[in-house]
Amino acid sequence: MRMYDIIKSKRDGHVLTTEEIDFFIKGYTGGEIPDYQASALLMAIFINKMNKEETVALTQAMMHSGHVMLLDSIPGIKVDKHSTGGVGDTTTLLLGPMVAACGVPVAKMSGRGLGHTGGTIDKLESIKGFHVELTTEEFIEQVKSQGIAVIGQSKNIAPADKKLYALRDVTATVDNISLIAGSIMSKKLAAGSNAIVLDVKMGSGAFMKTLEDAKELSKAMVDIGNSMNRKTIAVITNMDQPLGLAIGNALEVQEAMDTLKGHGPKDLEDLCITLGGLMVYLGKKALSPQEGEQRIIENLKNGNAYAKFVDFVTAQGGSIEALESLPTASYIEPVNAISEGYVMHIASEEIGTAAMHLGAGRKTIDSVIDMASGIVLNKKVGNFVKKGECLAYLHTNDKSALVEAKISVLNAFSLVNQAVVPDPLIQAIIE
Amino acid sequence: MRMYDIIKSKRDGHVLTTEEIDFFIKGYTGGEIPDYQASALLMAIFINKMNKEETVALTQAMMHSGHVMLLDSIPGIKVDKHSTGGVGDTTTLLLGPMVAACGVPVAKMSGRGLGHTGGTIDKLESIKGFHVELTTEEFIEQVKSQGIAVIGQSKNIAPADKKLYALRDVTATVDNISLIAGSIMSKKLAAGSNAIVLDVKMGSGAFMKTLEDAKELSKAMVDIGNSMNRKTIAVITNMDQPLGLAIGNALEVQEAMDTLKGHGPKDLEDLCITLGGLMVYLGKKALSPQEGEQRIIENLKNGNAYAKFVDFVTAQGGSIEALESLPTASYIEPVNAISEGYVMHIASEEIGTAAMHLGAGRKTIDSVIDMASGIVLNKKVGNFVKKGECLAYLHTNDKSALVEAKISVLNAFSLVNQAVVPDPLIQAIIE
Repeated sequence: MRMYDIIKSKRDGHVLTTEEIDFFIKGYTGGEIPDYQASALLMAIFINKMNKEETVALTQAMMHSGHVMLLDSIPGIKVDKHSTGGVGDTTTLLLGPMVAACGVPVAKMSGRGLGHTGGTIDKLESIKGFHVELTTEEFIEQVKSQGIAVIGQSKNIAPADKKLYALRDVTATVDNISLIAGSIMSKKLAAGSNAIVLDVKMGSGAFMKTLEDAKELSKAMVDIGNSMNRKTIAVITNMDQPLGLAIGNALEVQEAMDTLKGHGPKDLEDLCITLGGLMVYLGKKALSPQEGEQRIIENLKNGNAYAKFVDFVTAQGGSIEALESLPTASYIEPVNAISEGYVMHIASEEIGTAAMHLGAGRKTIDSVIDMASGIVLNKKVGNFVKKGECLAYLHTNDKSALVEAKISVLNAFSLVNQAVVPDPLIQAIIE
Repeated sequence: MRMYDIIKSKRDGHVLTTEEIDFFIKGYTGGEIPDYQASALLMAIFINKMNKEETVALTQAMMHSGHVMLLDSIPGIKVDKHSTGGVGDTTTLLLGPMVAACGVPVAKMSGRGLGHTGGTIDKLESIKGFHVELTTEEFIEQVKSQGIAVIGQSKNIAPADKKLYALRDVTATVDNISLIAGSIMSKKLAAGSNAIVLDVKMGSGAFMKTLEDAKELSKAMVDIGNSMNRKTIAVITNMDQPLGLAIGNALEVQEAMDTLKGHGPKDLEDLCITLGGLMVYLGKKALSPQEGEQRIIENLKNGNAYAKFVDFVTAQGGSIEALESLPTASYIEPVNAISEGYVMHIASEEIGTAAMHLGAGRKTIDSVIDMASGIVLNKKVGNFVKKGECLAYLHTNDKSALVEAKISVLNAFSLVNQAVVPDPLIQAIIE
């Protein structure tokens, strides 16, 4: 088998065999196939596309390119959740304890963030003492005893995807359904859970701009999961504004706690109930998604979800005291509206960039995150805003970042004269 | 300007601007653009194609990536000729003196061969004493005084093409009309002549398998030349068998001399009259291609073409004595037919490969050519062959190569029961 012939075959619009895809992924990960041949193939795949079987084969090959977690020793159906990325997306912090409280084990591998705000691990590390340095054995033991544990993503999870993604990023071959689906699912599958709930964002600020594109990506990922006996369901959610109100690490932890206690932002709570309901259903602790949602709501109301959060944080080095003394910023500045109107849209990316400049995210891989900084929205889509009324609060320890962040936030808000009815947050469920 | 955006644009089927193409070629030749981005763009170009303007821009950029010969100090219209490659293609050896004898200056830059047989320079070097180590000044002086000179191709002629070709070769992006046309024409244009006659081979053994493909390539090259004020005409010729009878370096020099003296193989003579007629016409030494052909025929008959060949060889270190004592092989073995029939087809590549194994070509870049070795055909398409009759003679100094070469030659000949009328050698003329 020669890489040349594989490139030629896809170039000419043929279907690649599983053996050809395996040969490519093994050879590229091992360094025998050079970047220039890989990028030629990626471009041919981008333009001529891959069918369902090829996409599954690609995902499997990437999944098996490194370490695959074995969670079999944990009783029950382990359910994972993945979001295709959003600004102020606090769902993981909430869903873990919510679902664990319903009896579904959560063995979560999470990442740090490069970009607008930190990743789930960065957020959790804003809690004093919290750490993710667990061995695999400690991790599994904690899931068994507490029902939930979070560790950092091993460098050896789907290394083929890591290498390929870096190449796609510089060769204009990122935005292809098969390649995106394969990239996401190879990591999720290698992380070892038995079932997966996907939160696929759509809208101007997301990867997928239209409902149609989001459905296509969702279908591809659900197909991959199901064809590998990992029951997968995708929820397509609107991203015409950041989810919840808080953007920033400690601010999101606070918002997560508020929501677990029953007084968080409604959109965040609603989405978590939907996603959590599906996870409980897939984890076979409910007979239907609706029953799953009921279980989630019960466990929010009776305080079990919040108690599970505290147990989880404590098990990994945090404490109630640490949760009650999250870092706070020296400067809290309102951004006031310069005209009046109904909020039609809040550009998530602009808000995210402003939060990053305030210190909440990493500009480069070496940046140090300021856990206290970020943005708290005061208005959401559909709200009426008077001139001079507060749109959002900026939190930072870096006073010099305020002016630019203020301008970004003002730009992010689109105000109109007519009343606005927000689009439904949940656009479709694909299974 | 960013290479990423150029890749993305072509990926999405857009037309690249001249500035974008220049940026790519300059950056790639200079080493700022890495191979993996270049190969992604090449694949996008391959699949989504380039239009005429893009192809011209690519050619110009590659032409200007290195040294461009200035032949202005030589009076008259300098006419170059290029063949897309054939086995036993002795035309360059013949056309130079034929055209020079008609008063059209020939300033020829030629290459060595890697493959079946040597290039024009290798062939000429089978003449004892002949050399191509001329300075540019000596080269130009010789064209002025003798009407013809040949030098080796400078390493700095179209270096972008050299680098890109090497990449195309390993990324399955060779067979694209714009890329092939640009590659050929960038070198021809950098070689400095005012007009160009192209011999585009078609058939099973050629790059272009069908007349349609050959026309498309011809049209692309003619468009490039004409749009740069270098009048260009393409002749599409059939390659269902090797041209002439001889394949091998000294053997082809001998065949060239025989043809210049008026007793060479008819197909070779006919093609040289057609190509030469067009060159004389483009060199404005005839008012029409037909008149050009008349001039060529006159100069063959009156001995001027052969005399010009001798003058040219002598000017570059050879001699009449050297021409009369070309190297000969120790072993000359007939290949006899194992059945009878009419010759329908002679696979040029198989014959070429056999000649290479006998010593006539380079297997690797370091191989030393045996000037004496090669193959002389005894039968051509349309001939009837009796069982046991000689199809071809193998010439070699390496007895061990004979068996394999014999098998290749037998495989190369397709014999059939019905009489065969050869396809016309000249299939079309594109201008």
